[in-house]
Amino acid sequence: MIDFITFCDYAGTFAFAISGIRLASAKQFDWFGAYVVGVVTAVGGGTLRDILLNATPFWMIQPSYLIVSALALLFVIIFRKYVIRLNNTFFIFDAIGLGLFVAVGIAKTLEFGFPMWVAIVMGTITGSFGGMLRDILINEEPLIFRKDIYALACVFGGMIYYICMNTPLSPAMTQFLAAASVFLARVIAVKYHISVPVLKGEE
Amino acid sequence: MIDFITFCDYAGTFAFAISGIRLASAKQFDWFGAYVVGVVTAVGGGTLRDILLNATPFWMIQPSYLIVSALALLFVIIFRKYVIRLNNTFFIFDAIGLGLFVAVGIAKTLEFGFPMWVAIVMGTITGSFGGMLRDILINEEPLIFRKDIYALACVFGGMIYYICMNTPLSPAMTQFLAAASVFLARVIAVKYHISVPVLKGEE
Amino acid sequence: MIDFITFCDYAGTFAFAISGIRLASAKQFDWFGAYVVGVVTAVGGGTLRDILLNATPFWMIQPSYLIVSALALLFVIIFRKYVIRLNNTFFIFDAIGLGLFVAVGIAKTLEFGFPMWVAIVMGTITGSFGGMLRDILINEEPLIFRKDIYALACVFGGMIYYICMNTPLSPAMTQFLAAASVFLARVIAVKYHISVPVLKGEE
Repeated sequence: MIDFITFCDYAGTFAFAISGIRLASAKQFDWFGAYVVGVVTAVGGGTLRDILLNATPFWMIQPSYLIVSALALLFVIIFRKYVIRLNNTFFIFDAIGLGLFVAVGIAKTLEFGFPMWVAIVMGTITGSFGGMLRDILINEEPLIFRKDIYALACVFGGMIYYICMNTPLSPAMTQFLAAASVFLARVIAVKYHISVPVLKGEE
Repeated sequence: MIDFITFCDYAGTFAFAISGIRLASAKQFDWFGAYVVGVVTAVGGGTLRDILLNATPFWMIQPSYLIVSALALLFVIIFRKYVIRLNNTFFIFDAIGLGLFVAVGIAKTLEFGFPMWVAIVMGTITGSFGGMLRDILINEEPLIFRKDIYALACVFGGMIYYICMNTPLSPAMTQFLAAASVFLARVIAVKYHISVPVLKGEE
Repeated sequence: MIDFITFCDYAGTFAFAISGIRLASAKQFDWFGAYVVGVVTAVGGGTLRDILLNATPFWMIQPSYLIVSALALLFVIIFRKYVIRLNNTFFIFDAIGLGLFVAVGIAKTLEFGFPMWVAIVMGTITGSFGGMLRDILINEEPLIFRKDIYALACVFGGMIYYICMNTPLSPAMTQFLAAASVFLARVIAVKYHISVPVLKGEE
């Protein structure tokens, strides 16, 4: 089970980092800048969560997140020509990572003694704040505010978590079902072009 | 007295959230994105203050701030056509909220044992950082750096707080006078178009 | 020795604040806005480091950093016409400050019991995050992602620190050599137009 979670965590980190690095390359950033954008995309959400929880940021405890992000940079440099063909693979990794990040964010917040509504907010922050920071760094309006269902999939997963918590399911199964819900909500939303309505401006 | 403070706090939160949601709607954000911008505008300043003070962010302790922001979103969705006519009302709420946020920020910082100059900086951050984050999220140059007196009204209120603290006035009265000073400075500055001079660039 | 470090610290703060204030003036910010950009440029990196380390931000302990930034604003206001001629002086101050900020960031992180790789990341954050925030505030793509060697000079200095730590050199000498390496790497990179390659986008 731990190996499976670790795999999802690394796959998600890799996919999140790739998304940052690709957008940075479209803006002509240098290698180092692209790496920074990749790292920020991958660990930004969990870092804000840990700062708000007053915990030591998770990536400062073991170097694997920075290393996986470096591998993502290497991957983009070496396989530049083929990266675009892997869009669907990255999308699946990204959705897996999103689900896992949300479940981990909720579990950690509950461990710190906060109520469920705080945990759902933290799960959503863990999953979506990295992408928001990425878009700020490359000086674009955050995509997650305008495209598909992303943050809302995190909130949905949080609700599934809450429901499962109040059943006899084990904590591991609860986390798995919450992560799977985020994953499915995200995949279905993209496949069927489901999105949140645009807020119409004033007349 | 507590009820009056609570009312001001909610009115300010509501007005701050409205300002974020309206700007987000002008940028075609979806409902969820607009809600996030509204929440960040309303709680961003107090959150940075609490992170710097190493305190648990205030909105994680009770859900009312997220709820008031959700009501602001509903309000904009339902009363979209009439929102623009309420500009003056929102401006007054916004200025009330600003005054209260500054006073609360100063009082909390002093409670944590920091000197007055840190408290004035924290009061100013509490009042103005949310609007700065809002402008970063919608990818605009922060307005508070270029329009009217906003942050400076916070600093002015901090000085009034300091003066009152050194008189026999009660803490509650000190906070009230500081908040009122911010409110008045802001209203007078906008009414008479008083602004800080622009910093001229190099030749 | 302490006097020399204090001098470098103030010179670096001054130069960092000047860089923020000058860019803000090019964007027509008002005096207060320019001051905020200056302060954020000067203390932003160390503030993020202290938040991540869960320490009280350094500028909240003594007011000198805010005062030096205010002097930088006064300097730009009064000597506006001549500031551009001092470009080389500011560049040297900036590079001195960068070196010192990196060394201080590494030393503080090691004191908090983190391993060397975290310290190098923190040194790099201390040196380069302020400039990144500055560019976000003035709504530009961060320069450090695209120009010369900046953040990489910080990483290089961190490696020198690590090497010196494993010799019989005194801690003060280790810090001095690390700071000097950052300074030299930065100066040489600019003088000989050495830069990190741009990450090429997809075909």
